[in-house]
Amino acid sequence: MKKKLSIVDIANQLNVSKTTISFILNGRAKEKRISEELVERVMKYVKEVGYKPNSLAKSLRTGKSNTIGLMVEDISNPFFASIARLIEDRAYKNGYKIIYCSTDNDTHKTQELITMFRDRHVDGYIMAPPEGIEEDIIALLKDGMPVVMFDRHLPMVNTDYVEIDNLFSTYNATRHLIDQGYKNIAFVTFASEQTQMKSRVQGYKDALGASNLKQNILEVVFNQNEDLIIEPITDFLTKNKKLDAVLFGTNHIGTCGLKVISAMELSIPKDLAVISFDDYDVFKLHSPPVTAIAQPVEEIADNVITVLLNKLNARMEAQRPQSITLKTDLKIRKSSLKIK
Amino acid sequence: MKKKLSIVDIANQLNVSKTTISFILNGRAKEKRISEELVERVMKYVKEVGYKPNSLAKSLRTGKSNTIGLMVEDISNPFFASIARLIEDRAYKNGYKIIYCSTDNDTHKTQELITMFRDRHVDGYIMAPPEGIEEDIIALLKDGMPVVMFDRHLPMVNTDYVEIDNLFSTYNATRHLIDQGYKNIAFVTFASEQTQMKSRVQGYKDALGASNLKQNILEVVFNQNEDLIIEPITDFLTKNKKLDAVLFGTNHIGTCGLKVISAMELSIPKDLAVISFDDYDVFKLHSPPVTAIAQPVEEIADNVITVLLNKLNARMEAQRPQSITLKTDLKIRKSSLKIK
Repeated sequence: MKKKLSIVDIANQLNVSKTTISFILNGRAKEKRISEELVERVMKYVKEVGYKPNSLAKSLRTGKSNTIGLMVEDISNPFFASIARLIEDRAYKNGYKIIYCSTDNDTHKTQELITMFRDRHVDGYIMAPPEGIEEDIIALLKDGMPVVMFDRHLPMVNTDYVEIDNLFSTYNATRHLIDQGYKNIAFVTFASEQTQMKSRVQGYKDALGASNLKQNILEVVFNQNEDLIIEPITDFLTKNKKLDAVLFGTNHIGTCGLKVISAMELSIPKDLAVISFDDYDVFKLHSPPVTAIAQPVEEIADNVITVLLNKLNARMEAQRPQSITLKTDLKIRKSSLKIK
Repeated sequence: MKKKLSIVDIANQLNVSKTTISFILNGRAKEKRISEELVERVMKYVKEVGYKPNSLAKSLRTGKSNTIGLMVEDISNPFFASIARLIEDRAYKNGYKIIYCSTDNDTHKTQELITMFRDRHVDGYIMAPPEGIEEDIIALLKDGMPVVMFDRHLPMVNTDYVEIDNLFSTYNATRHLIDQGYKNIAFVTFASEQTQMKSRVQGYKDALGASNLKQNILEVVFNQNEDLIIEPITDFLTKNKKLDAVLFGTNHIGTCGLKVISAMELSIPKDLAVISFDDYDVFKLHSPPVTAIAQPVEEIADNVITVLLNKLNARMEAQRPQSITLKTDLKIRKSSLKIK
């Protein structure tokens, strides 16, 4: 690889001090009373030789790289993909670049990614954290690195996070099914200790409890391979013939669930009413359209970036961690309405 | 921020030479005949004080960061999101981390991202390049940086790329519609000078030409705001009542197209047969299911990573750039079959 030209090389070549070159390149010529003639000569030379300041070297001096590390669970999930995109847009408009990675909910991989981001001098972190990463995040915070979480939080870590009201969201969706007259309502979710997933199942339980209805919960194991999610759902729906409605706990499970229902040739909502967490094109374009708990993705992205930028621009000690909880929107469509 | 412990600090503390510490930490103790007792003492101390080698500093020495920069057009597009995810998985299994960004098809933003990746010492680049970025990529290649393109290529840049057979894909899909008896077939695409988009429209034209059928092409402007795509498609379908089939040039246009068709209450395929480029859940779960040109996303990801790893592991000069063209699969579903 070609050796990069340094400020020292330029200084030697032009017979001007390194400090003077540095002042000129950093736009401080006027302040330092450097002659216009010299500024012009340096800038002309710099352009000729194609000198580009190394912004990482600059970040080592200034302590700022204007880069933010973003860790999502799985970039191929439409919820995370759209959030990542919106965060990237908003950061870019504020002069920050985002570099992102998928954690795959894997603690070890996440630790490696944190190390990589750290070595690359990111100014701050945005993450949907997996379980077991508490100590690593506490270490970042101790070193004064801002960390904002979204989608979920870690109860043992005292830092900023942006979440939605998961418990009320599933409570409200389950209530809607009960109000429509459904009595055997299932909840299909991922087996998880994460805060958002625990709240979602709790909301479902609370709504059933208030109406003295029986719980029917299926927990499937998170897996990239769709077949390993479709299989247990098929089993569950085959064995529980009495079910008249089902609430899916995430968009991924919802999509798999629709595939199962289609393969079993069940009619929605006649044989089985359906609601899914998260709203996206698959649910909107489905026949019949699927009732969905829509997360306010734009608002989540806005809040995450605002909280992080505030941290980056202010003295850390001045601020106590914020937790922001946003409301979801139950988009009622044909899939959950009772056919009279 | 807490000052990081350096090798010099450890050497001073243990009264051992810096070089010896370095050999031990880099796993070369045996080779350098350093006593096991000393190795144990150093490793114990390193663990106690929580010393972590700075891998960026290491990359500055070794010239390797084991990081690859990936630039997609738009991470919220399911095609790019799934490719990014698969590339990330395969790279990770080979000891590489991927950091990615969306170019938004914006040349200036892409230039900034290249600079950022460069400053962060990525070992190589994978990109779906926007137009106008030729010189920047040529500059990377001149400096010995491996660059692999996918989804499209830049005819003026002599580097590796992985593509699909775009021309044959749309030729074949259009042929299928003609064989079904459709005579007024439209093609809705993005206005673009990119190689893949030019080939897609050419395949459509060639198939119509061979059967002496009239072209009906609508080019919409690439936009994040879906309404600005839905509007011209609505106009187009309203004004061209004679159309009996439509081929959508990308998944994003296809999804917008389905929304228009649903809003206009046209019946698929009775009023209008439909095929879309790219296959994903929206098309599979649609009623009726939508015929789609499925890109071999796993194969694309595999080939991109294999080509890049070969470049990284071999002497660059030994290799001539490869161009790999993969086949697509026309998934014929109800939306394009003629109702007799």
